[in-house]
Amino acid sequence: MKNPQLNKNGELQHLLTIDGLSANIVRHILDTAESFLNVAEREVKKVPLLRGKAIFNLFFEPSTRTRTTFEIAAKRLSADVINLNVSASSASKGETLLDTVDNLTAMQADMFVVRHGQSGAAHLIARHVAPHIHVVNAGDGRHAHPTQALLDMFTIRHFKQEFHNLRVAIVGDVLHSRVARSQIHALSILGVPEIRVIAPKTLLPAEVERMGVHVYHDMRQGLKDVDVVIMLRLQNERMRGALLPSAQEYFKYYGLTLDKLALAKPDAIVMHPGPMNRGVEIDSDVADGVQSVILSQVTFGIAVRMAVMSILAGSHAA
Amino acid sequence: MKNPQLNKNGELQHLLTIDGLSANIVRHILDTAESFLNVAEREVKKVPLLRGKAIFNLFFEPSTRTRTTFEIAAKRLSADVINLNVSASSASKGETLLDTVDNLTAMQADMFVVRHGQSGAAHLIARHVAPHIHVVNAGDGRHAHPTQALLDMFTIRHFKQEFHNLRVAIVGDVLHSRVARSQIHALSILGVPEIRVIAPKTLLPAEVERMGVHVYHDMRQGLKDVDVVIMLRLQNERMRGALLPSAQEYFKYYGLTLDKLALAKPDAIVMHPGPMNRGVEIDSDVADGVQSVILSQVTFGIAVRMAVMSILAGSHAA
Amino acid sequence: MKNPQLNKNGELQHLLTIDGLSANIVRHILDTAESFLNVAEREVKKVPLLRGKAIFNLFFEPSTRTRTTFEIAAKRLSADVINLNVSASSASKGETLLDTVDNLTAMQADMFVVRHGQSGAAHLIARHVAPHIHVVNAGDGRHAHPTQALLDMFTIRHFKQEFHNLRVAIVGDVLHSRVARSQIHALSILGVPEIRVIAPKTLLPAEVERMGVHVYHDMRQGLKDVDVVIMLRLQNERMRGALLPSAQEYFKYYGLTLDKLALAKPDAIVMHPGPMNRGVEIDSDVADGVQSVILSQVTFGIAVRMAVMSILAGSHAA
Repeated sequence: MKNPQLNKNGELQHLLTIDGLSANIVRHILDTAESFLNVAEREVKKVPLLRGKAIFNLFFEPSTRTRTTFEIAAKRLSADVINLNVSASSASKGETLLDTVDNLTAMQADMFVVRHGQSGAAHLIARHVAPHIHVVNAGDGRHAHPTQALLDMFTIRHFKQEFHNLRVAIVGDVLHSRVARSQIHALSILGVPEIRVIAPKTLLPAEVERMGVHVYHDMRQGLKDVDVVIMLRLQNERMRGALLPSAQEYFKYYGLTLDKLALAKPDAIVMHPGPMNRGVEIDSDVADGVQSVILSQVTFGIAVRMAVMSILAGSHAA
Repeated sequence: MKNPQLNKNGELQHLLTIDGLSANIVRHILDTAESFLNVAEREVKKVPLLRGKAIFNLFFEPSTRTRTTFEIAAKRLSADVINLNVSASSASKGETLLDTVDNLTAMQADMFVVRHGQSGAAHLIARHVAPHIHVVNAGDGRHAHPTQALLDMFTIRHFKQEFHNLRVAIVGDVLHSRVARSQIHALSILGVPEIRVIAPKTLLPAEVERMGVHVYHDMRQGLKDVDVVIMLRLQNERMRGALLPSAQEYFKYYGLTLDKLALAKPDAIVMHPGPMNRGVEIDSDVADGVQSVILSQVTFGIAVRMAVMSILAGSHAA
Repeated sequence: MKNPQLNKNGELQHLLTIDGLSANIVRHILDTAESFLNVAEREVKKVPLLRGKAIFNLFFEPSTRTRTTFEIAAKRLSADVINLNVSASSASKGETLLDTVDNLTAMQADMFVVRHGQSGAAHLIARHVAPHIHVVNAGDGRHAHPTQALLDMFTIRHFKQEFHNLRVAIVGDVLHSRVARSQIHALSILGVPEIRVIAPKTLLPAEVERMGVHVYHDMRQGLKDVDVVIMLRLQNERMRGALLPSAQEYFKYYGLTLDKLALAKPDAIVMHPGPMNRGVEIDSDVADGVQSVILSQVTFGIAVRMAVMSILAGSHAA
């Protein structure tokens, strides 16, 4: 099956999912992001790469944080950014997703950054649009969140240099997490030899081992000697639902404390995609501690999104 | 009575309604739009005509689509655009419409693009503002939606070249449609000899014939040999109300199908202002068919709005 | 106690409150604003002072008006502006205020313009951020609204030239007004010899006299021979609450009419921070009358906010 995000020359036309990307493409994105890191430190934080391009932030799910990082990245590339929160508008008027996309395309969009509650929405759009248009998946249902995974890889490489000698643990609600799914793919592609997931059975997908991960239900066992701890956000709705007894109970077993972190390697780094629930999945002592690189992830996220957008815009329809 | 949208030199100072515009002014807008069409195809989709001008999108009714087209048009003219959704803010604080306008004027607005649920709102604002400020009506109640009608005329001219030999049918909820009202005025001004409206009695204004149109209740009769079919959007609230039996019933009698369209001229074009209710007023086979120019309307809409804004900004207080 | 808004060199690092500012700093802001007034009258209303800087409008309370003035001011300084209405987003996801700020800081924010329902929110943020970041308080709870007070001082100076010979009356809901609190501080700092507050007992803070003001419960007495009348907005929720009998009753005793205004000096000016409740705290004859400078306040507000932002951006971490 042809990879829907590559053009005939094997260049990245869309960024829809990490699954199926080559290590070369992933590394190229990370290297390009590296070159954008210093733009943020200039007096004038701008490069003219996408001047006059129209980028639509097409958000069917609210997300100020992700939308803002894409908006900043696009503005630093000098693009014109149009923010559309679609839930409140055409969607409520009964227009279909593809009609909305066709209309925006007719307004000469160059790129869509799409967040949608349904898995596959970004793929659907990418299959539909004209060949000169680019689609970035900014999170679709439980499926994928590739730019998050890429910024996580950038962060790991920044602090650990190499991937081939790492032990990485992902902790929390893997079942509902598009972030975890994309991270596991990215870590595999980059050659991380040992990926662990740590969670209660109710928060793990069936047959998760088939993704090449080792499953731990005991957090202390799972953190033993890891180099990287990636905490997942626990959605509030899970806590109110039947899947978990209570936030306190969750914190006791799966919340990251200094005490549990001490089981990892002494130089292990702690990551979190944000927003954090302090006292639920992570203790403040850890979140604000010396091993936390959570805010670096945010900074790197801008550079990585600049890289993705400029690489896509530079690929040619084929 | 003096036309409130012209200055003393007969130049367009505001665009409030199509009613009362000369054919010359309408043609000038269409010609200017023609010159902007190619801006969208450049590498850098920008011209500096309105650089440093402050344009306020003042939307008292939500409309992502229309607001977005004006925002894109203004940005392509290099203006600074401020979006204000007023329902949620000062309006709820009890400030009057004109106080809101006065305040924004005091912030040195150059142009207001106004959408409001009440007919006449844009006129009220235009009468009130200082002479150097321009007002564009982006839809007021059931009254007028002039830029939509202009982009429709642009579309018709693009595909049919001339107006004086055309038969045009407008189909659907004419009663509640500011779009239909503005279209009928524009078609008359440009010399279309035969304008038909096709609708059930409950969706037609009283004495609609006085606007110079021919009324058909039978869609098959009304479509016979027409050059242009303009479908209107059926508002969801009409379907839930007492005016119509059901969406299915409406589609049966007034939905445009390939079968009914076959009664029009073979080269007839199909238009729709969007967003479409597929399966209610229009069948997908028609919406996506070879005679549909619905997406061209959207593209032309940007150029037409750029034309309107640049013409207004170029007129001088008198 | 060190003033938290000054750096070690005594320069303004943040603008959090008028309280504690020197007359020199206040005058410097007003003088700088003077130089920006003419930018608004240029063909291209822009100066490149903050080009490439990222300014975040961080609004935890909705306020289209104030947010818009800051947005316009920032755009005239050529900054990149990101609007964040936080109530609907991360706040609802349980993230703390300081986590939100840390995340935006990690996106390389240069300045935060903060409005928050809780007194002290802007101080909290200013204490927390890195030294190269600037915070402007755009209103915190009942505490302070310094840019409003500064634009009011600019307005008074514009029309009255001097402060040392003025009698100023502030009328209305002083108790709940951050505007009044900031105005009283500013008037004192600039040497206004007589500041009066006029209000019913229920709308005055306990021991308000300790702020150096003279209290009047009778509006006619309080307005006698004043040079400046500053009306406060009466929040709707006060009228619905137990504090006031009714809007009509309030207007009778504390609404500004031409009749009552006649007791002030003949050249007295009338100010209001907006949005106005016509017929509640102010009669339309006064609001639209020759002594009203209410719309000038709005215009000056842009220049004052440009001054504050450019002065802060020009101060250096110390």
